[in-house]
Amino acid sequence: MTVQNQARTESPRSKRSVILDAAIDNFGRVGFEHTKWATIADEVGIGQTALYHYFESKVHCLLTIMSNELERSFERTQQVTAEIEDPAEKIRVAVMTAFDVTPREALQARILMSHQDLLVGQRSSKREEAERQRARVLVRDIEHEWAELIRDGMFAGAFERRDEQVLSRLLLGTVNSVWRWYRPDGAHTLGEIADLTAGACVRLVR
Amino acid sequence: MTVQNQARTESPRSKRSVILDAAIDNFGRVGFEHTKWATIADEVGIGQTALYHYFESKVHCLLTIMSNELERSFERTQQVTAEIEDPAEKIRVAVMTAFDVTPREALQARILMSHQDLLVGQRSSKREEAERQRARVLVRDIEHEWAELIRDGMFAGAFERRDEQVLSRLLLGTVNSVWRWYRPDGAHTLGEIADLTAGACVRLVR
Repeated sequence: MTVQNQARTESPRSKRSVILDAAIDNFGRVGFEHTKWATIADEVGIGQTALYHYFESKVHCLLTIMSNELERSFERTQQVTAEIEDPAEKIRVAVMTAFDVTPREALQARILMSHQDLLVGQRSSKREEAERQRARVLVRDIEHEWAELIRDGMFAGAFERRDEQVLSRLLLGTVNSVWRWYRPDGAHTLGEIADLTAGACVRLVR
Repeated sequence: MTVQNQARTESPRSKRSVILDAAIDNFGRVGFEHTKWATIADEVGIGQTALYHYFESKVHCLLTIMSNELERSFERTQQVTAEIEDPAEKIRVAVMTAFDVTPREALQARILMSHQDLLVGQRSSKREEAERQRARVLVRDIEHEWAELIRDGMFAGAFERRDEQVLSRLLLGTVNSVWRWYRPDGAHTLGEIADLTAGACVRLVR
């Protein structure tokens, strides 16, 4: 075991994030359905009983990855827009920031997009259901966050007045749809895509 | 059996579409995972062996629904844009048409959006794989179709020159994202959503 790995597996808290990282890499690379739960346990170097302590199922782990990605996205948008005055610039920076991610965060965003279905139906397991509820609250928070950016621009006279709930959903739909087709080895870099999408989103709300 | 049902189940061809309709209603209402294949057989009034003649699995049926929706969308866009000259009007009408659907077509569009993942990985069954390939070709055709609408507008000087491949994907991402959250009993009618989305898409490409 390297020093780095040792440090990463020291406390229960860091073990949890090691499991999540391994799960993101596997779900992102071979897909959720094709990932064996035992593979995660092996990679992290713990038994399945110990793994169960952190996540009671593969779905529970997936829902946690989704909530975490939603939370990360919500907080990042708050951070980067807080100090900006100009409404259009707020939107531009918020969109650019959505694509300013590490490779693992990009995988996490793709996993979130691919499994949004999971947020629709109630889970019979309590821990899964708690995580699903957390994700649903965050989805609504993010919609409100973007609707507020749009509404502020309308009040400031920078954007035409339109239904900001629908508009924020369209904006988020535009941004998130990229994770469906973006691949690190694709024809466009994430930087190029970020520029084009940010421009498109600013025009969309004007 | 009513006269209408009799007519609908007369030929193998119409039986196939009766099965598809029942599958759309069930997948759309209770979800693909929660729909039992036997329920479809019961509703249509055939045995599971006969059902197998048309679709070898629930996934095969789902992939067929997805291909059919893609084909419907591709053809409708062709039809409605063919006679229009103005590039922005072409985009506006294409988007409006995407939302000019029957309740069952709306369900079909939602099913397509929710299961796009299925198009990524190869299927081991030959019939499923053939249907997946058909869907993938249609996805590309639709992207080209919209990219062409955008490129025509650029050449005509109506839209600014930008990467039309990324732009067509953003446009389709914006339009398709609606099917994730639209519900017939929701706060907005499909007509209102169509207007707002069409306006947003025209601004997006300008």
